[in-house]
This record gives sequence, structure tokens and C-alpha cells, in this order.
Amino acid sequence: MSDPTYEFYWEDFTTGFVREFGPVTVEAAAIVDFARQFDPQPFHLSEEAGRASLFGGLAASGWHTASLTMRLMCDGIINKSASLGSPGLEGLKWLKPVLAGDQLRARMIVLGSRPMNSKPHVGLVHTRWETLNQRDELVMTIESWAMFRRRTPGTPPAA
Amino acid sequence: MSDPTYEFYWEDFTTGFVREFGPVTVEAAAIVDFARQFDPQPFHLSEEAGRASLFGGLAASGWHTASLTMRLMCDGIINKSASLGSPGLEGLKWLKPVLAGDQLRARMIVLGSRPMNSKPHVGLVHTRWETLNQRDELVMTIESWAMFRRRTPGTPPAA
Repeated sequence: MSDPTYEFYWEDFTTGFVREFGPVTVEAAAIVDFARQFDPQPFHLSEEAGRASLFGGLAASGWHTASLTMRLMCDGIINKSASLGSPGLEGLKWLKPVLAGDQLRARMIVLGSRPMNSKPHVGLVHTRWETLNQRDELVMTIESWAMFRRRTPGTPPAA
Repeated sequence: MSDPTYEFYWEDFTTGFVREFGPVTVEAAAIVDFARQFDPQPFHLSEEAGRASLFGGLAASGWHTASLTMRLMCDGIINKSASLGSPGLEGLKWLKPVLAGDQLRARMIVLGSRPMNSKPHVGLVHTRWETLNQRDELVMTIESWAMFRRRTPGTPPAA
């Protein structure tokens, strides 16, 4: 089942594995474009409404911040890995507003891993994602599980 | 602080409040467009790669499903309410693939609420979101807290 074109398989994501990706600049036009499609609340649609809100400026939808983080993860590591998707998130925190002009980086930290008993060629990886701005402030954190193809199906976990 | 143009304030979201919104059809072109921007994994980019994956067809990014659900929530209730954003999610499960052509509905269920002690004009609402497809299968669930302006600042919770 192993595909030699991937750099990372399940076995490579051992506890303590850390990588950081980005930055990407969050443009005002992209904030408004995302909000018009998916989250048309006033504080995501105009600088004026953003300034009048708890956010203090034109603020990206939390789903936009998550999606931009996903893109950084795809470009940085997921598309170099034998990724098989994710069953979900254990938690997601939007800690600070992401405002127009902010520069975001994404950090992936592996918290643990285990084989998937029902599918011998698949393993699960428990990760924490951190999204940081240009002031090194955490703007979003995620804890999730992701599925990756195993380099060697059916063997015990490398960790 | 009360704005008479809103239909729903914090006090209106009492435990057991349920509403359902949609449907929206998930078009193949929209799946690919979202994936190109935010989640360019092969199974989100082509029918062929989707069929070869665990998803069994061209599958929407989980972030796309969440964003589409947010849009249903905005159109159905959030933009009729004194919404102030969300501090995060307690959990999110992607339970089934969302494939091209699927029709999604979103259900909001209020699990509980409490005032925000630090801001007397703001209250928190604990909600469960369910996203269902045209076969009434749950494809995604979310548990989260959201902030809403109070109709009457500083009074005890209505519930």
C-alpha cells in the first residue's frame, strides 16, 4: 500500500514532532470575500462595523482563520504526507481577533499516536495546531486527530 | 445598548430552543473551488481521486462543510440576532463524507446559557449544531459557545 512519493507516513509523526509554516498575510479583501460567502456578519464585512464590535477592526471569520491555517498545513506538510483526512476536532479556541493585515503562521505539534484497529494500513495522530500572528500571539488553537496511511501496515506503533 | 432591529437576544436562547435551516446543495465546482483555496488535498480536488479515497467520491473539505453550515446559521438566525462572535468549539465531528450533489441542512439546539460576568451586556449560549444530508444522516456535529448581547444588561439569566 506504501506510496514512495510521500515524505511522511503515520510512523513519522512521533510525539514531540513540531513544524511551523507560513507566514500568510490576511488581506482585507479576502476577509470580506470569505465572509460574503460563508459568514456574513457585519464585523467580518466592513472596517467600520469591525471597529464598532468587540474585535476592534475588520476581523476574519473564525472559519476563515481555520481555513487559512489548513492551507498552511496542506502546503507545509499534509500534502507531503499520506493523509487520509480527520474524524474531527477535540477543541478549537479563537483566542484573539485576526484583523486585516495580520500575518499568520501555523505550528503543528504531535501529542501522540495510535494504530487504527479496524484498518491495519491506517494510523491516527493526535495533534495540536497553533496559529500565531506577527506579534507571536496565539490567535487560534486546535486539538484534533488525523488519519495517515502506515508505512508498514499492521505493525505495532513506532512510538 | 439594546438594538430594536434584532429578533433574538441572549435571553431568547433558552435550553431546548431548536431551529433548522436549509437545505443548500453542495455543488462539485464549489467543493473544488474551496479546496483549491484552503484544503488542496487530492480527494477534495477531483472525482477520480475522491473515488480512490476512503470518502468514495469527490468530498467537501471538512472546513467547507463547517463554513456552509455557518452560512445556513447566519441566514437562518445569527444575522437576526445580537451576535457577538464565539470563543471557540468544545468539539467538532466529521461523521460522514459530504459528496458532490449532497443537500445539507443545519440544526441549532440550545444546550444551556449563562451571563458573562466580565461583561454585563453580554451572555453566553451553549449550542449543539447538527449538519444533516438529504438522507437525514448526521454528517457533522459541533458543540460550541457563542456570545450574544443581552436584551436587559446585568439582570440574572432568563433560564
